[in-house]
Amino acid sequence: MNTAHTVGIIGGGQLARMMYEAAIGLDLAVRLLAEAPDVSAARVVRDVTVGDCADPATVKGFAAGCDVITFDHEHGPTGLLAGLEAAGLAVRPGPAALVHAQDKRLMRERLGGELGLPCPAWRVCADAGELRAFGDRTGWPVVAKASRGGYDGHGVWRLDGPDDVGIPFAESLPVSAGGPVAVIGEEFVDFTRELSVIVVRGLDGRALSYPVSETVQAGGVCVETTTPVPGMSEDRKNAIQALGLRIADALGVVGLLAVELMERPDGGVVVNELAMRPHNTGHWTIDGAVTSQFENHLRAVVGLPLGSTAARAPWCTMRNVLGGRSADSAGDFAHVAAADPGLRPQFYGKSLRPGRKRGHVTAYGDDCDQVRARARTAAADLMGRPDV
Amino acid sequence: MNTAHTVGIIGGGQLARMMYEAAIGLDLAVRLLAEAPDVSAARVVRDVTVGDCADPATVKGFAAGCDVITFDHEHGPTGLLAGLEAAGLAVRPGPAALVHAQDKRLMRERLGGELGLPCPAWRVCADAGELRAFGDRTGWPVVAKASRGGYDGHGVWRLDGPDDVGIPFAESLPVSAGGPVAVIGEEFVDFTRELSVIVVRGLDGRALSYPVSETVQAGGVCVETTTPVPGMSEDRKNAIQALGLRIADALGVVGLLAVELMERPDGGVVVNELAMRPHNTGHWTIDGAVTSQFENHLRAVVGLPLGSTAARAPWCTMRNVLGGRSADSAGDFAHVAAADPGLRPQFYGKSLRPGRKRGHVTAYGDDCDQVRARARTAAADLMGRPDV
Repeated sequence: MNTAHTVGIIGGGQLARMMYEAAIGLDLAVRLLAEAPDVSAARVVRDVTVGDCADPATVKGFAAGCDVITFDHEHGPTGLLAGLEAAGLAVRPGPAALVHAQDKRLMRERLGGELGLPCPAWRVCADAGELRAFGDRTGWPVVAKASRGGYDGHGVWRLDGPDDVGIPFAESLPVSAGGPVAVIGEEFVDFTRELSVIVVRGLDGRALSYPVSETVQAGGVCVETTTPVPGMSEDRKNAIQALGLRIADALGVVGLLAVELMERPDGGVVVNELAMRPHNTGHWTIDGAVTSQFENHLRAVVGLPLGSTAARAPWCTMRNVLGGRSADSAGDFAHVAAADPGLRPQFYGKSLRPGRKRGHVTAYGDDCDQVRARARTAAADLMGRPDV
Repeated sequence: MNTAHTVGIIGGGQLARMMYEAAIGLDLAVRLLAEAPDVSAARVVRDVTVGDCADPATVKGFAAGCDVITFDHEHGPTGLLAGLEAAGLAVRPGPAALVHAQDKRLMRERLGGELGLPCPAWRVCADAGELRAFGDRTGWPVVAKASRGGYDGHGVWRLDGPDDVGIPFAESLPVSAGGPVAVIGEEFVDFTRELSVIVVRGLDGRALSYPVSETVQAGGVCVETTTPVPGMSEDRKNAIQALGLRIADALGVVGLLAVELMERPDGGVVVNELAMRPHNTGHWTIDGAVTSQFENHLRAVVGLPLGSTAARAPWCTMRNVLGGRSADSAGDFAHVAAADPGLRPQFYGKSLRPGRKRGHVTAYGDDCDQVRARARTAAADLMGRPDV
């Protein structure tokens, strides 16, 4: 098998940091293109280039020393990545796949249109009048989204009625180096809960799905996952895994694909968002699965066979640490570690800022309620708040 | 709790490399004192000082930037480490404990003498005549060992009869910067198998034992461990764990202690060797235990509470990769990964040399024989040899 050995990662966040942990055990060399010298991954990776991932000269110079390029985030301009690929460099996932995680309009056209997969009703709206017409037709509230550049709740607005339709156009839309940013109107799905399925697809087209997770979001940010999703039939879980695998195959993803879904009151699901990289809703795999999402993403992009995606425990809950009791993650962890020796920590080396994702904790075991309670208690302690 | 945050690791081998993987998740800063710029850990650690761990100026300069000093190997001179400690630096394990892993004479005096723990018959022999007298008294064969500086079978000789007693004195003894090297005669224990117990002791004196492992050595090098040790009563396993905890407590170890033992035909055990650092016989804990030996060593030396040492699967076998099919670990792994998606790899970033420890593989599951067969098949494939 022809294996790439030097992996260039664009973006220096915690996803690159956790990929690095996995790369060490596989003996893959990592080069990091980081936005600043003190970002999460740049604090631990040996070979760091600091530069702008939207600058062609920077990215080309960086990529020249790598066997394959992959990503911590989706902000790399599609055209620039396509240029690298045209020049013979391996970019995985390739820009033709990645654009569906960068551009919600293209994603909806492909998934909801061509592939006929379950999506909310949606429409690109050129102005407030079109957005009002969309809302009047599908019913209020509606959700407005910037087609590009949004993340963690930024670039998403809930519009309660016709009076709100000016908001997305009055606020400055996210800036995207990747392409034009449009406003999309989407049906407001009154979901019972949110779900995620993580799929990994290898260079040879073989793909595996991790078990489906229930996810909890607050203010657009993931705060918790529980795996497997409680209270769902095996048939439904299998259908969601098949949906994830179908999307990965149709889009030609190489590496990780995270499919975020909303569950309707009748049990049906619609696709909410896609990401093509290790994903917050897959952090549980570090301690909860045979092969972590980070290792499997690397295996896929370098051309190695994938590792087992099986769960290692009946129940696994991951809880994000947002903000923190203090700037001292390891010190704060002392209390939690004393109370729960089985709790698994992962800290990202980030300075303290309210609401910032600075780490996560994972609990696993035989009882769903107990596992969830352990993760919540630990995260609340690390965040300096009373238990949720 | 007063937690140290910058850990200085003396020695750049694979143990430091695997400690680094664990340090990232705990958000501990690591500084590495490596013997050369291209050794195993120096290839991945961000903050590397290249220098000689026996040079006082080098070690003092290195230590000044660290909150606590710990070890990848035991070659740091006891006097130099004691000097650091006297100057107020935290050295863990401290030199007063560490010397028992460096000097087999002191170890035997303490364990076999003062503590009355089961050891082989032994004697320091000043010359060949004393060694012959020892052998004539205890019976041949005998084992001769250099008291300091030996590792992986170096500095250990099996002497079959009186004619061999000149060998240890004729061969050059290992060099040790730590202190004088004597020849020790030891009873040859005709063991049925070898065992290991890994204990971790925290800064507060609390200690935990991992389950007891059966180990297989070839040519003085560990090649395999299976955990828990098969075919042993719970009482005996508990007694061995208690023995490990007693030694850690008596010697005041902070961090990992590996106790290697030999099992006699009657089921009794004797202590063979001690190590005070993460140990080859504990590599299974990365995938097989809740908290790895590397994470627990770091937790101990920085003053964090210890993580659970419980096993995660009924059976776990680790097999070393010695030498290799080629210099390309990741590429060679493709075959193994395709055949066994549940197999866990760990490669050390070392160039190819016959017999060199270049990585290990771990299998776990419900059936001891199957788990062992999977690990053996994978290691044999990676080593380019027919299955053992």
